[in-house]
Amino acid sequence: MNREEMMKTVKEEMPEKRWRHTLGVMETAVILARRFGADEEKADRAAILHDVCKYWPVEKQADAIRESGFQTDVLSFDKELWHAHAGAWIASDRFDVKDEDVLNAIRYHTSGRENMSTLEKVVCLADYMEPGRDFPGVDKIRELAETSLERALLAGFDSTLSFLLQKGRRVYPLTVLTRNRLILELDV
Amino acid sequence: MNREEMMKTVKEEMPEKRWRHTLGVMETAVILARRFGADEEKADRAAILHDVCKYWPVEKQADAIRESGFQTDVLSFDKELWHAHAGAWIASDRFDVKDEDVLNAIRYHTSGRENMSTLEKVVCLADYMEPGRDFPGVDKIRELAETSLERALLAGFDSTLSFLLQKGRRVYPLTVLTRNRLILELDV
Repeated sequence: MNREEMMKTVKEEMPEKRWRHTLGVMETAVILARRFGADEEKADRAAILHDVCKYWPVEKQADAIRESGFQTDVLSFDKELWHAHAGAWIASDRFDVKDEDVLNAIRYHTSGRENMSTLEKVVCLADYMEPGRDFPGVDKIRELAETSLERALLAGFDSTLSFLLQKGRRVYPLTVLTRNRLILELDV
Repeated sequence: MNREEMMKTVKEEMPEKRWRHTLGVMETAVILARRFGADEEKADRAAILHDVCKYWPVEKQADAIRESGFQTDVLSFDKELWHAHAGAWIASDRFDVKDEDVLNAIRYHTSGRENMSTLEKVVCLADYMEPGRDFPGVDKIRELAETSLERALLAGFDSTLSFLLQKGRRVYPLTVLTRNRLILELDV
């Protein structure tokens, strides 16, 4: 499937507002890829597809995760994590994306994971800071992203974890492992 | 070793201020044990010993953890976690404490762990809220402890995690698993 067809299909899967978010992530991911040395075309591709399942009924997302057989532990955590895992499966199964780095950038764009590739970090960070985002701390994340992919991403995960603490919600353990790893990477 | 000898020996291992903290934890742990149905004598014993290694040089604490062979992964995390694990080993090895529940209450009084016993929760919470403690949120923890061991302990771990986030420090994964478990226990 070519890029235009892919965009057209993804756009139909979500409300207009989410499609504008997707366009923001595409733009930002390409800028960050250039800045930090990831493949721009892969960043664009992962960004187009990252939220393809976001507006699916959660049971359909869960089915896709079960079908994928990947990291099904996510099903016992926050439903907001599911669309990323479902999305990676759909990217592979329906959009015929075979590049593992692109698939992982979609799969881990919400939770993160230990040992993220540069592309995975770029897509995850773009999702936090695309121009349409507006939450406490987002300007600090954008400022850090001028110079450090890891510092900016760490600030992103910090904001997610603070939010979950405040709301009394459980934390997906992999996100904490991701944050710990980023701190170690920055310490080196 | 009888209780008086134990107290005398522990007192000599720490500065006066920390001994006063230990007395506060003893008093609070017994009150909480009575309130929530744990063994008061065991709560007293665990509280006496919980910080016995707190003022040891960190290398001596690390040696005790290595000697114990228990959960040595803690050595790659925050040094403030070490004294609890070292303390459990010393309680068993030098103070001849054989009760597993008392030893676990000492071992996990800082990190927590999944499936904590009532005694473990009591000692951990007493350490957060003894009368000498003064940090943002401690009064809320004391208020919650009037009625719910789990809600109070959850608030305690939330305060620790917020602190670590603010300071940019790594989080011991077991503490997040403990918090997640407490939320599930409260949801039931």
